[in-house]
Amino acid sequence: MSADAPNYDELLDLRRDLHRHPEPAWREFYTTARLVDTLETRPLDELYVGPEVLAADRRGVPDDAELDEWTHRAIEAGAREDVVARLAGGNTGLVAVLRRGPGPTVGLRVDIDGLPITEADGASHRPAAEGFRSENEGFMHACGHDAHATVGVGVLDAVAASDFEGTLKVFFQPSEETVAGGEPMAEGGHLDDVDYLLALHVGLDHPTGEVVAGVDGFLAVSHFRAEFSGASAHAGGHPERGRNAVQAMAAAIQNLYAIPRNHDGATRVNAGLVGGGTASNIVPEEAFIEGEVRGETTELMEYVDDHAQRTLRSAAEMHDCEVDVEYEGRAPGGESDDALASVVSAVADETRGVDSVLASDDLGGSEDATYLMQRVQERGGLAAYVCVGTDHPGGHHTPTFDVDEETVRIGVDVLSGAIRRIAAERP
Amino acid sequence: MSADAPNYDELLDLRRDLHRHPEPAWREFYTTARLVDTLETRPLDELYVGPEVLAADRRGVPDDAELDEWTHRAIEAGAREDVVARLAGGNTGLVAVLRRGPGPTVGLRVDIDGLPITEADGASHRPAAEGFRSENEGFMHACGHDAHATVGVGVLDAVAASDFEGTLKVFFQPSEETVAGGEPMAEGGHLDDVDYLLALHVGLDHPTGEVVAGVDGFLAVSHFRAEFSGASAHAGGHPERGRNAVQAMAAAIQNLYAIPRNHDGATRVNAGLVGGGTASNIVPEEAFIEGEVRGETTELMEYVDDHAQRTLRSAAEMHDCEVDVEYEGRAPGGESDDALASVVSAVADETRGVDSVLASDDLGGSEDATYLMQRVQERGGLAAYVCVGTDHPGGHHTPTFDVDEETVRIGVDVLSGAIRRIAAERP
Amino acid sequence: MSADAPNYDELLDLRRDLHRHPEPAWREFYTTARLVDTLETRPLDELYVGPEVLAADRRGVPDDAELDEWTHRAIEAGAREDVVARLAGGNTGLVAVLRRGPGPTVGLRVDIDGLPITEADGASHRPAAEGFRSENEGFMHACGHDAHATVGVGVLDAVAASDFEGTLKVFFQPSEETVAGGEPMAEGGHLDDVDYLLALHVGLDHPTGEVVAGVDGFLAVSHFRAEFSGASAHAGGHPERGRNAVQAMAAAIQNLYAIPRNHDGATRVNAGLVGGGTASNIVPEEAFIEGEVRGETTELMEYVDDHAQRTLRSAAEMHDCEVDVEYEGRAPGGESDDALASVVSAVADETRGVDSVLASDDLGGSEDATYLMQRVQERGGLAAYVCVGTDHPGGHHTPTFDVDEETVRIGVDVLSGAIRRIAAERP
Amino acid sequence: MSADAPNYDELLDLRRDLHRHPEPAWREFYTTARLVDTLETRPLDELYVGPEVLAADRRGVPDDAELDEWTHRAIEAGAREDVVARLAGGNTGLVAVLRRGPGPTVGLRVDIDGLPITEADGASHRPAAEGFRSENEGFMHACGHDAHATVGVGVLDAVAASDFEGTLKVFFQPSEETVAGGEPMAEGGHLDDVDYLLALHVGLDHPTGEVVAGVDGFLAVSHFRAEFSGASAHAGGHPERGRNAVQAMAAAIQNLYAIPRNHDGATRVNAGLVGGGTASNIVPEEAFIEGEVRGETTELMEYVDDHAQRTLRSAAEMHDCEVDVEYEGRAPGGESDDALASVVSAVADETRGVDSVLASDDLGGSEDATYLMQRVQERGGLAAYVCVGTDHPGGHHTPTFDVDEETVRIGVDVLSGAIRRIAAERP
Repeated sequence: MSADAPNYDELLDLRRDLHRHPEPAWREFYTTARLVDTLETRPLDELYVGPEVLAADRRGVPDDAELDEWTHRAIEAGAREDVVARLAGGNTGLVAVLRRGPGPTVGLRVDIDGLPITEADGASHRPAAEGFRSENEGFMHACGHDAHATVGVGVLDAVAASDFEGTLKVFFQPSEETVAGGEPMAEGGHLDDVDYLLALHVGLDHPTGEVVAGVDGFLAVSHFRAEFSGASAHAGGHPERGRNAVQAMAAAIQNLYAIPRNHDGATRVNAGLVGGGTASNIVPEEAFIEGEVRGETTELMEYVDDHAQRTLRSAAEMHDCEVDVEYEGRAPGGESDDALASVVSAVADETRGVDSVLASDDLGGSEDATYLMQRVQERGGLAAYVCVGTDHPGGHHTPTFDVDEETVRIGVDVLSGAIRRIAAERP
Repeated sequence: MSADAPNYDELLDLRRDLHRHPEPAWREFYTTARLVDTLETRPLDELYVGPEVLAADRRGVPDDAELDEWTHRAIEAGAREDVVARLAGGNTGLVAVLRRGPGPTVGLRVDIDGLPITEADGASHRPAAEGFRSENEGFMHACGHDAHATVGVGVLDAVAASDFEGTLKVFFQPSEETVAGGEPMAEGGHLDDVDYLLALHVGLDHPTGEVVAGVDGFLAVSHFRAEFSGASAHAGGHPERGRNAVQAMAAAIQNLYAIPRNHDGATRVNAGLVGGGTASNIVPEEAFIEGEVRGETTELMEYVDDHAQRTLRSAAEMHDCEVDVEYEGRAPGGESDDALASVVSAVADETRGVDSVLASDDLGGSEDATYLMQRVQERGGLAAYVCVGTDHPGGHHTPTFDVDEETVRIGVDVLSGAIRRIAAERP
Repeated sequence: MSADAPNYDELLDLRRDLHRHPEPAWREFYTTARLVDTLETRPLDELYVGPEVLAADRRGVPDDAELDEWTHRAIEAGAREDVVARLAGGNTGLVAVLRRGPGPTVGLRVDIDGLPITEADGASHRPAAEGFRSENEGFMHACGHDAHATVGVGVLDAVAASDFEGTLKVFFQPSEETVAGGEPMAEGGHLDDVDYLLALHVGLDHPTGEVVAGVDGFLAVSHFRAEFSGASAHAGGHPERGRNAVQAMAAAIQNLYAIPRNHDGATRVNAGLVGGGTASNIVPEEAFIEGEVRGETTELMEYVDDHAQRTLRSAAEMHDCEVDVEYEGRAPGGESDDALASVVSAVADETRGVDSVLASDDLGGSEDATYLMQRVQERGGLAAYVCVGTDHPGGHHTPTFDVDEETVRIGVDVLSGAIRRIAAERP
Repeated sequence: MSADAPNYDELLDLRRDLHRHPEPAWREFYTTARLVDTLETRPLDELYVGPEVLAADRRGVPDDAELDEWTHRAIEAGAREDVVARLAGGNTGLVAVLRRGPGPTVGLRVDIDGLPITEADGASHRPAAEGFRSENEGFMHACGHDAHATVGVGVLDAVAASDFEGTLKVFFQPSEETVAGGEPMAEGGHLDDVDYLLALHVGLDHPTGEVVAGVDGFLAVSHFRAEFSGASAHAGGHPERGRNAVQAMAAAIQNLYAIPRNHDGATRVNAGLVGGGTASNIVPEEAFIEGEVRGETTELMEYVDDHAQRTLRSAAEMHDCEVDVEYEGRAPGGESDDALASVVSAVADETRGVDSVLASDDLGGSEDATYLMQRVQERGGLAAYVCVGTDHPGGHHTPTFDVDEETVRIGVDVLSGAIRRIAAERP
């Protein structure tokens, strides 16, 4: 590619096209196909898609009807049918590989999924005003993953056009919002020879021009869905014939929040979406809890999870009900390696448009990039989670979220610069 | 009575037409209009509709969008627009009056609403096989109110054609299934001069040919909907910023079921439909309970209700939430008067097709006919709740419920016969 | 014995002596020894004591230290050491047998234990004023069992002096207040040839002069003690090391009271005495619940008991604790046989001092006489629970309870009369 | 310093005499009197006792009967009656003042109360083997406060014999174990002119020879006692007449532990001692919770406390009960000032017998010395909490706890040395 790479006009067109087509976890058919289309025009060495990049075990995959609906929607929106066919079963996502000689292998992880949030529609919301508001009503890129994917393409362009020596792999990961995509991608094989891994997030309350070189403070997290089942009965006539799934659910909720605090650090538990029963006068046969447990470390998360599992089972048993608990997503804790973050920091300091560089900052939330980071770190590699600030009008996960598109350029410059220097310096 | 009254072919056509158009509480637009159409062909003295038969205070009325939808649906199905216009705001139901000289005033109460149940569609389900299955998908006459309304018309025909002396009022009551229609109809004014009141139910596990002259054992009931509201927060980042409506709901559920039992008789409580929250990782801002309290007497129901209200309020306060509790329907306990039931029993004994007559039986459930019965009894009148058995393939409130249409004839004969004898004997 | 039997001066001396020495369940050492002393002066045929009258399995027996203390106390108060020695292990109680020819075997059951209540000490409380207040401070005959035992002796005297033909067995039962003595006495063998059984209670809010011939409405009951054990921990330093027995207890309490009501009749549950933990800053290692379940029938009691057991186990498991549940006492439901009560009623009608005879009345509580009644009824015999009214200044189980001593005479007359007529008439 | 000051034989006699007479919170009559006796032999300038050193508001004071018993016990053990008389109402504790010229005012805080623990009695427990085991059976100096008080006297001796210029105040504080004595002593007036404050604790799992110059990591704490009252009723006959205090207690316990975690730091809650009710068959009228709330900061403790108060009130209201909540003790969080700890550290480094000096360590528990530290720090002074290690056979608050008496000497040397240097250097 020529010296004028990357082409930002093309990149911003891509970002807005992805923004118009937000797709939730394991349903990123249009997104994956659009990225394949784009990347096939690049001088890449390898491009792996769907089942080629994911381990077989995946959590939280929707049922076939749901997958069919989104497959259909993607094709109607113009996705290439041959690519979509390769994503059968919701095996979305891709990995692009650029091989430039004998140097180290550097990975970049970007995520690509959207959220079940209805996008704002007012004149002050730029996507609405400028015609790239979500066309999938009820869904939205409200966390900047459209920009992440775009930066991933831009970095490939920039590195390809540079004197980089080594291998670059860009991981376009699905299903981050449900913390379900990280684990199968970490175990998909393509990470096993990665020496250095960078992961990207934009915003996080940092303004345009600020960069955090190595984000820390990830809470390990596990999402679960518990389904209680008992037996219904006429609540007036024969209450004794019921096995009350709502009573089981309520006992579980009360006791989940009461799991003991832990000396070793912060823990969290939440029963975030619950429901049960059918009508006032029927003893409820079914109920469910969608919840999560978190911990400052993976061990602390597992401590809460052990208690939570026992609480759910005992609450069911107490009311003579059954309970089925499914994990829907999970991510370990994690930390950025200082040695790698230092390189990012040094490059950011020299990057046009960057006026503030923080060595580290606490996320205070969860992210399944930690699975990929952990995979690399366990094998002796280094990893850093980089935040590229962006002025965002609304908060993350709100209807008025948007990114300052200048961030795409800064992100490409910082990350491609860091990748080149990492290959050169091997920190 | 002229030999051709009532005309059962016409009555069964009516029943099947009503069956095809089941409408839930306060949305009986087609049903009311169809009955007005039919009754206007009769030699009635007065016909009161909608707001003319209901007190202004009504519980559980749906919002305007919902009412508009059903209004529209009724008109599309052929309901007369001028009648539907009179039912604005969901003021459904009607009262038909036949005046035949100076005798006593006898009332007959039938109910007209359907249920939110999807009707069976197999060949063994007669309405499906013979083409009168519900056309309002998701709704169904699964408790025989289509037959009740039809018997109401038939009784008017039979009594009009007889030597009856006195006044007959037939109350076509909406919203029985939500126990919301009884109270405003009882207070609508038309019951205040009724000396004797009969109420009808078909089936109740009694076969065709069996009649219960005076049903007892009504549990007083009150339905409520409690809406808890707190404040959402990120469950990982700032749990302390939340005011957790699901915790409030769970505390309420646990303690509702634990309301003390009562020496004076049976009590019931149920949290039959509950829900709350939005996602695993958000502290829930909203939650709700749709529930009911019951008692063997009105006093016992009110005992449970007092405890339930206090429990709901305290549970909200405990978690720094607000709660708004709405009554959605209510019915007192009640008893049939033996003196009136004896007349029904005597007539039933002589009726063709009746081979078993029970003086009384326990309902073991709730019914807002008790409001109308109580209104009459408080003013010195007598009331009896009559069950006319019918072979029903599926249970009440199940998708395969249906009535044996012979029951329509038996019901008309027993009730019109009883009305004539009541007027003659003044028990 | 001569025609002047019974000797009421002697009987009232006995009653007052027993009143001065109230002993709680399984600790009736003085009482049993005093009765043996008295009865050995009578012309009885057999006298069985302690282990000779009780099945080996007994619930709620205190530990050895407690038994030793009461043994010692009894001997200090003058109990015969040889008799007390036969009651080792708290095998208290006795059965006296009078054989008078070939007639039927009639049983009379009286109970002999006191209560852990501190007796009133004012001038208006007759036992205090007249010098027979409890000498076992903190314990009291607050339910009239001193009078019951005395009537048992008097009936033996009266029947012995009469023309009675048959066998009379008087069962002096321990541990009624804890519903623990009935079952082992019912299974002790002496009841197996009893054709007719009468059981006695005084008072029950019926005044002197009133007799209830056949009390009904016994609630079946089961008492339990659940001990939860977990692990303690410093609540500030290491809450995660605790396994919190108080949390288990609280979860159990909340859910015990929420056991579903039952269509078939009244049920009850109570966590009447609870406790746990050691200090504010220690995660509690131990906790307990002393509670009971009841039902209008034995089946209903067992329904509640099944739910209670499951609730206790699940609550322990939920908080990673163990629970040990012991039954401490139990009694089935029961009913008096009308045929037998009729004889009592007829005799009472003719008894001096009786001015009101009720055929039956509901107890509304529990009594382990039902075990003995059931034993007889299952083998084809008849049983009746007789209440002999007495003016009692304070209520049963209160510090000012006392009996009108005239009741002793009326009780002896009614019961001995009934026993003679039963033998004669064989109802 | 004269060679004979302090006299360690006398000090160890004092320590063992105090060990033989452990007294719990607000009942340190013997201890205070014994210290007054000892200190009156010293060349002190002022000695304040009881009400002269405590603000009027005190929490957790026992009732009069309890105070009388311990007053009596103290006098029997040889306490001077005139001193005990000055401690009326449980106003125990004292402040000794040494004025030596115009320098700064330095304070030393030691605590003097014992614990409700039964002391070990085996040959391997030195106090038992050597004849100074507790003579107040059931109570014990199981946290070393006997040594603390002794060190306080020794420091007075050592400083008096030195070239110290300034004022030394030693605060002998009662009621630390219940975190009740710190606040009234902090507000008693004698701390208001203190420029530097040291507080002492021995042990804390540090061995003899180790010193921690400035302990940190105090959790703010508040102890409460909640008493629920409702109404009793016969659980079988009239459950509806009860207002169940045990249900209220259980609802409170479940929801206390479920108070939301907090982003800003660690929080704790514990229901450590609970109980209620009287017997299986009585609806419980009374119940109580003795519990505590803690936080990494005072604000966090107050956050939990606000939730706890609301939870207790709402739980009572939910079951139609009343609740009365008393604070029984309270302590804020706190931190040692590095500048002051540095002086302690430097002196310790030079002290004979000290082989390890830690600049700081986390307590991970609570201590009401923080009230005194805060009082000084708020007025511009400096404070440090010093730990002097001791080999203790059993853990703190266990029956085999004991101190290595060499610790008394080391404590006196380190603290008196530090006080002299503080006066000289004014850090």
